[in-house]
Amino acid sequence: MKIENDRVEITSGVRWGKTLGSPIGLIVKNFDWENWKTVMTPDLPDGDEKRGAMTRPRPGHADLTGGLKYDQHDLRNILERSSARETAARVAAGAVAKRLLQEFGIKVFSWVTQVGGAGWSSSDIAAKNPEAFFKKAEGSEVRCPDRETTSKMKARIDEAKRDGDSLGGVFEVTVVGAPPGLGSHVQWDRKLDGRLARAIMSIQAIKGVEVGVGFMAGRLPGSEIHDEIFYRKTSRTAGKAAGSGCWPASRRFYRRTNNAGGIEGGMTNGEPVLLRAVMKPIPTLYKPLRSVDIKTKEPFKAGIERSDVCAVPAASVVAEAAVAFEIADAFLEKFGGDSVRETSRNYRGYLDQIWKF
Amino acid sequence: MKIENDRVEITSGVRWGKTLGSPIGLIVKNFDWENWKTVMTPDLPDGDEKRGAMTRPRPGHADLTGGLKYDQHDLRNILERSSARETAARVAAGAVAKRLLQEFGIKVFSWVTQVGGAGWSSSDIAAKNPEAFFKKAEGSEVRCPDRETTSKMKARIDEAKRDGDSLGGVFEVTVVGAPPGLGSHVQWDRKLDGRLARAIMSIQAIKGVEVGVGFMAGRLPGSEIHDEIFYRKTSRTAGKAAGSGCWPASRRFYRRTNNAGGIEGGMTNGEPVLLRAVMKPIPTLYKPLRSVDIKTKEPFKAGIERSDVCAVPAASVVAEAAVAFEIADAFLEKFGGDSVRETSRNYRGYLDQIWKF
Amino acid sequence: MKIENDRVEITSGVRWGKTLGSPIGLIVKNFDWENWKTVMTPDLPDGDEKRGAMTRPRPGHADLTGGLKYDQHDLRNILERSSARETAARVAAGAVAKRLLQEFGIKVFSWVTQVGGAGWSSSDIAAKNPEAFFKKAEGSEVRCPDRETTSKMKARIDEAKRDGDSLGGVFEVTVVGAPPGLGSHVQWDRKLDGRLARAIMSIQAIKGVEVGVGFMAGRLPGSEIHDEIFYRKTSRTAGKAAGSGCWPASRRFYRRTNNAGGIEGGMTNGEPVLLRAVMKPIPTLYKPLRSVDIKTKEPFKAGIERSDVCAVPAASVVAEAAVAFEIADAFLEKFGGDSVRETSRNYRGYLDQIWKF
Amino acid sequence: MKIENDRVEITSGVRWGKTLGSPIGLIVKNFDWENWKTVMTPDLPDGDEKRGAMTRPRPGHADLTGGLKYDQHDLRNILERSSARETAARVAAGAVAKRLLQEFGIKVFSWVTQVGGAGWSSSDIAAKNPEAFFKKAEGSEVRCPDRETTSKMKARIDEAKRDGDSLGGVFEVTVVGAPPGLGSHVQWDRKLDGRLARAIMSIQAIKGVEVGVGFMAGRLPGSEIHDEIFYRKTSRTAGKAAGSGCWPASRRFYRRTNNAGGIEGGMTNGEPVLLRAVMKPIPTLYKPLRSVDIKTKEPFKAGIERSDVCAVPAASVVAEAAVAFEIADAFLEKFGGDSVRETSRNYRGYLDQIWKF
Repeated sequence: MKIENDRVEITSGVRWGKTLGSPIGLIVKNFDWENWKTVMTPDLPDGDEKRGAMTRPRPGHADLTGGLKYDQHDLRNILERSSARETAARVAAGAVAKRLLQEFGIKVFSWVTQVGGAGWSSSDIAAKNPEAFFKKAEGSEVRCPDRETTSKMKARIDEAKRDGDSLGGVFEVTVVGAPPGLGSHVQWDRKLDGRLARAIMSIQAIKGVEVGVGFMAGRLPGSEIHDEIFYRKTSRTAGKAAGSGCWPASRRFYRRTNNAGGIEGGMTNGEPVLLRAVMKPIPTLYKPLRSVDIKTKEPFKAGIERSDVCAVPAASVVAEAAVAFEIADAFLEKFGGDSVRETSRNYRGYLDQIWKF
Repeated sequence: MKIENDRVEITSGVRWGKTLGSPIGLIVKNFDWENWKTVMTPDLPDGDEKRGAMTRPRPGHADLTGGLKYDQHDLRNILERSSARETAARVAAGAVAKRLLQEFGIKVFSWVTQVGGAGWSSSDIAAKNPEAFFKKAEGSEVRCPDRETTSKMKARIDEAKRDGDSLGGVFEVTVVGAPPGLGSHVQWDRKLDGRLARAIMSIQAIKGVEVGVGFMAGRLPGSEIHDEIFYRKTSRTAGKAAGSGCWPASRRFYRRTNNAGGIEGGMTNGEPVLLRAVMKPIPTLYKPLRSVDIKTKEPFKAGIERSDVCAVPAASVVAEAAVAFEIADAFLEKFGGDSVRETSRNYRGYLDQIWKF
Repeated sequence: MKIENDRVEITSGVRWGKTLGSPIGLIVKNFDWENWKTVMTPDLPDGDEKRGAMTRPRPGHADLTGGLKYDQHDLRNILERSSARETAARVAAGAVAKRLLQEFGIKVFSWVTQVGGAGWSSSDIAAKNPEAFFKKAEGSEVRCPDRETTSKMKARIDEAKRDGDSLGGVFEVTVVGAPPGLGSHVQWDRKLDGRLARAIMSIQAIKGVEVGVGFMAGRLPGSEIHDEIFYRKTSRTAGKAAGSGCWPASRRFYRRTNNAGGIEGGMTNGEPVLLRAVMKPIPTLYKPLRSVDIKTKEPFKAGIERSDVCAVPAASVVAEAAVAFEIADAFLEKFGGDSVRETSRNYRGYLDQIWKF
Repeated sequence: MKIENDRVEITSGVRWGKTLGSPIGLIVKNFDWENWKTVMTPDLPDGDEKRGAMTRPRPGHADLTGGLKYDQHDLRNILERSSARETAARVAAGAVAKRLLQEFGIKVFSWVTQVGGAGWSSSDIAAKNPEAFFKKAEGSEVRCPDRETTSKMKARIDEAKRDGDSLGGVFEVTVVGAPPGLGSHVQWDRKLDGRLARAIMSIQAIKGVEVGVGFMAGRLPGSEIHDEIFYRKTSRTAGKAAGSGCWPASRRFYRRTNNAGGIEGGMTNGEPVLLRAVMKPIPTLYKPLRSVDIKTKEPFKAGIERSDVCAVPAASVVAEAAVAFEIADAFLEKFGGDSVRETSRNYRGYLDQIWKF
């Protein structure tokens, strides 16, 4: 699993280490670009346009449908854009969002819980101390917080590699420090869970998204699912106090369980936001899959020389960025402001308001 | 499970049974409104505003968070809008979308596959003949296409009723007749799976959404997941031909499996779109849940006299409407046109183009 | 010039005289509806659909183009929606926006400055005391603040009536109390002048929009146009002080002229916003205009029995509403908040911040 | 008047001279960037951040308001982004839009009609042969189609230069070949005139926008304003025929006048679209204007060493691009399609439909 060493160049919107309020231009250069310069040039090629056309759609990819939709008979015109490499832009934008959220004590973490079936299906343990959990994940080659499970996952990946096969898996994204009231119950398109589901489902190869206990909610009765509400009269200085401009760990209204995954009525409820998603296996494998050449209409077997076996750890990083972006968007929508100073002041005022509620 | 007998009044955009291109105004009146006229009046009440304030937030609802966010100390100001009754508007709009899709041979079906754990977890069988499946579901009290499972679900509901508890469950939405190319791979916010996930996740009480095999995709190896591509030289008159203005059952490029659920690269690929979602149990139960009065800050037990036990069948109808709306939106985006005649002509042209691809 | 006695019914979003944060439903019923019930019914008519089709497009209206675009051969299907009566909805929504702005001391005024050439072309005088100006306008039958000009306008209207002709004219919209910083310089689609121009130009029959001195800015040299910047050390209690939650008349940075019309760099600059627009004459006149029947393709003369002569005063009221809506939108975008209390607190914080700038 | 020799680099969305349907990345490098590298670096500067802060807001610019809004005390953080140099991006995007419109025979032209009062106020002559008019304008140093007026404008500019002053002026943008039905009458935010007004008004220093006769419409009676409708039975091969995929000069329904400027009911009516806008004089002049230092609060005189005198010709080019962008947007909205082949087919079908209307 190769680590990408992408570098970002900032072309606008930042000066002397601070944003200016204007659009932030980010460029992430593809180091492989040099090798593709001629083949992918925007200029008119000197010779025949048809030369070297890619006419063999790979199952599980956008190739065939993209070709039909955009009337492209060289499928390279589809596959370069539909590649997951495009998510570099989302990760870069997410990094900016995370930096903004940091000002308000909001953090977004992700980790892998399952690879090809190895791992666990729901991780209520995660909510206890997500930051520690996250740190362990960052130390794992497969971004799994548990050392033993990491080994199992790696074994599964090695096995798949030997078989010329590929694996999908499950990852989780957790947001801590988000105050109650991001998103809204008033209209379907303002509901935060819908916005988060879209942000994650739109990542390449994601086939399912859950909030909180997710599909388990269909099996358990209401009395075991709903998070009861409690109250304690904490002082302001306890934990991260209201005055500090962060949603306090010492919140007054609180839940002891978090089956809802921190979202009720399309809004954050002040508990950690818990999201989970599944990624299908990489569709490019050694084991050939049957397909049809779009020019000759002849069947062929789509196999390749080399490929990664599992992209779940990478996908979890992309999802972390995508979630950070949505949370930052909902945060700015609620608190307004055109400088960190102004948004912070507005936020502190709200924390104070709900403290006294 | 009470059937709602809502009636819709059309106030604009339709004349003599046809749309005019202008916004369609729909009003669904709440028959219960008369009883709430005084309590919910927009006018200034004659007496004290504070009288009869609802100050007891129900766990699992938007009550508490909505109150904090909108600074409302009478939680009735939150709960009336956050109620699932609001989905009547989505169902009404979805009915218009379905009528439009019908012109192009596109149909949207839904059914319930699981209630409180009773049922089955994945229904590849569904894809074989969704319309027949759907008809059976329409005949079931719990909208389940299988008679035996219907009985099991009803037994589970009766049991929960006796226990004063509530149940969630799983339903599926299937779109047949959608051509390849709705949505787009080019940008995350144009991906159809993301848009559909958002549409469904934003329905009250939905906690998870899957496309195709969904979470199963994390367990199986790539060689068993990806849908291979085949080709057959069908004649145009076979099945629903291109000339008829419908995406033909006799498509030339096709798949024999549909693990992808009809969406690859964020676009419909021409196979049926298969969606699945989970609904949490209704949060209003006889069995009381602990909560805290927002005025007195005293704990209380939130229980009620009467309530439905399971809303999964109703939710499946809402999701059907929400999905129809998104598909219609993506359809018009791709084919343009300001009259059915124009959009049909554009669509037939495209079907012809991809037939010859 | 008939005064419309429309009444609005509030169907959602308001309770006991206060908004709830949820969408506000407003219905303005057309009292004339009874007479059109059968002709415009959404239901299938019992007889022939073609009966009584309107096939004679009126010059200066949307009739012909709308028919071509939407493939409608009964032009009534176009003209009912394109009618300026549709602006009742904008006026109703604008009333809500005005009520919100009132909380922050922001007021929107309009008056007519020219009817059929009678009046004056630029009204720098207006900026001195817009509220007094507005009150005078409200007392004039043609919404003109000047009594003598009112007489001239009425004479011009009487004359046009005798001639079977119609008249257009010019009106102004002024916003007072808007703080500096609504809109933004950072991107073209966030510029407030662009948003306001769109809001006004989209009103039926409007053919031009100006900000500040408008077209005069093309004639005068830079040294006579740009508003110089001054500073005075006012106390906070002077005028409407910062603490009061209103942008103070006693602002510290100020201009002595307002040729820019209160907008520089796509943002309000703290001076009154001055807008001016021209309305073309009502296209329905006694004096017949030549046109062509879309069915027979025969020429005919489009004349009518009775019509208003001049709609400029009504248009100024619509523009006032449209401007209020945009200002409220930009205001909420900048200051955020989900309750008047929260938005006010955020606003006061900003006023304090720029006071100390 | 210096000609900018900007070059655009295409970073995505185009291959071998053709677009791919994916986002087109364009980079226009500022040749002056090298000189600003240190001052404007996104990196943390090594020394004191406050050094060389620009604290003197220039009248007529976004400087002061931007500083207040974004809480920036170095006004360089505002002025670099608010500069009209930013329009290079709009011109680049407009060039892509123009290239697309060219496929459908739609062209966008602009020219200058007035500089500092020299020129003419309305140019109905323009509509006769806009392409010839445009070619003459391209040959004029001030982009004025008339040679004599060009001399007068240049004289006026020389004079202003001697006086240390600056000049604004008026330009026109014309769209030929647009079919009837772009935009829509059904909702205010879909009206094309509103969208065009916004696109133009959002260009730096624009203070007024007119469609067709514009403000003249307030002076003339209805009988002289409205464009009568005529019909002629042209053959399809006459002029640019329907079959050719271009809106034909030989249209059947037509007008002999074009006071409406090609837009009625918020839609193109098939006649050329005529737009006019005014630009205020460049606010940077030798003749000093009074302003106040934001740090010291001391008054100062804002004057500069060298500057352009008149930017109206440049603004007309930006407006041409902005209009092309909006027209292309409205065109794709109406005709849909994901390839030029598909959009052309749809368009030809519509031309055929309205030919037979």
